[in-house]
Amino acid sequence: MTITITAFERSPDRGKGLARDMRVRWALEEAGQPYEVRLLSFKAMKEPAHLALQPFGQIPTYEEGDLALFESGAIVFHIAERHQGLLPDDANARARAIAWMFAALNTVEPPVFDRALCMILERDKPWYEHRLRYLEDSIRNRLDKLSARLGDADWLDGAFSAGDLLMVTVLLRLKKGSGILEEYPNLSAYVARAEARPAYKRAFDAQLAVFTAASAG
Amino acid sequence: MTITITAFERSPDRGKGLARDMRVRWALEEAGQPYEVRLLSFKAMKEPAHLALQPFGQIPTYEEGDLALFESGAIVFHIAERHQGLLPDDANARARAIAWMFAALNTVEPPVFDRALCMILERDKPWYEHRLRYLEDSIRNRLDKLSARLGDADWLDGAFSAGDLLMVTVLLRLKKGSGILEEYPNLSAYVARAEARPAYKRAFDAQLAVFTAASAG
Repeated sequence: MTITITAFERSPDRGKGLARDMRVRWALEEAGQPYEVRLLSFKAMKEPAHLALQPFGQIPTYEEGDLALFESGAIVFHIAERHQGLLPDDANARARAIAWMFAALNTVEPPVFDRALCMILERDKPWYEHRLRYLEDSIRNRLDKLSARLGDADWLDGAFSAGDLLMVTVLLRLKKGSGILEEYPNLSAYVARAEARPAYKRAFDAQLAVFTAASAG
Repeated sequence: MTITITAFERSPDRGKGLARDMRVRWALEEAGQPYEVRLLSFKAMKEPAHLALQPFGQIPTYEEGDLALFESGAIVFHIAERHQGLLPDDANARARAIAWMFAALNTVEPPVFDRALCMILERDKPWYEHRLRYLEDSIRNRLDKLSARLGDADWLDGAFSAGDLLMVTVLLRLKKGSGILEEYPNLSAYVARAEARPAYKRAFDAQLAVFTAASAG
């Protein structure tokens, strides 16, 4: 059955691979599953047809036959459950990989995403610098602990998993310009290790091609 | 095998049931599984013994035989996968219930939790009033869409699921004082419907008893 996902017609990150369709593209590439992409304008995302698929008017969505899903974490999990390579077979190791999926999205992403939003929405506010420093301290609080746990291992818990995939997509948002990721050499190396995976590169190139085509059009 | 979870020795919410062990207690009660609780001081949460179980120094954790898990969402999922009553049997309905779990924690919780944190940590900051209004607008943006999707249904997608359980624990944080939940009669009724479940009540009473005993001690 054909898998169809949705993505931004013109990603606000200008093809840097930070939009949440990247997670799903990457998971599909790791799983070796072909997929089609339906591009959406910001206007189309708020219309009833898309809200029926995605109640919050966001991307990505995932359609396969009768199944329609939303939430990038849930879509990555769905792919990981059905194909090899993203979740270990051992039941306990699988449960721990799922814990890292939730940790990426629920514990590490919130301050990282808040910082990105603050830099867009609050740049002209008198408190901007103060608040940015405050958010960066929150991020360091999380990364101190993540770095301590990772140590000199390649991945968070044994083999590469959907937990690593989601964690890396969160950390990538810190890669350029913040300087924060560079304070943690083992986390920088962890992100670079993930970016070197062929599946990551294919997914990155695919999302960049969308932005490049939209900019040329 | 005995299930042991961790919880605050003295919950900062003073027994209102907003700490994240409540989710796990509730899920265990829905599943009819007995459990033991190990209480932790704030100091103990930052010590190596706990960091080995929970890399970010938080509660709850979940231990059962050889398995140690963290992240409330992952623990609720683990319980839901192994017992009846929290995930539908039909594969597509199950995937959609999991999407609601991620939506609760990754789309609805961030502004709701940020508002709570802001009210504790940023009250004396120059951006406080502005940020509080911004967060409340963000919350309304999410709840407008959640309310539209729920409509007059009892639960988010068919029968009560782990998706409803997590969504209700997020919405409960808005219940008293914000006035925001009350702007959405169907969401208020949804939360009340969940609070009326015997499993919810047993879990709530259990966490309240911990706070009451700590206060008396």
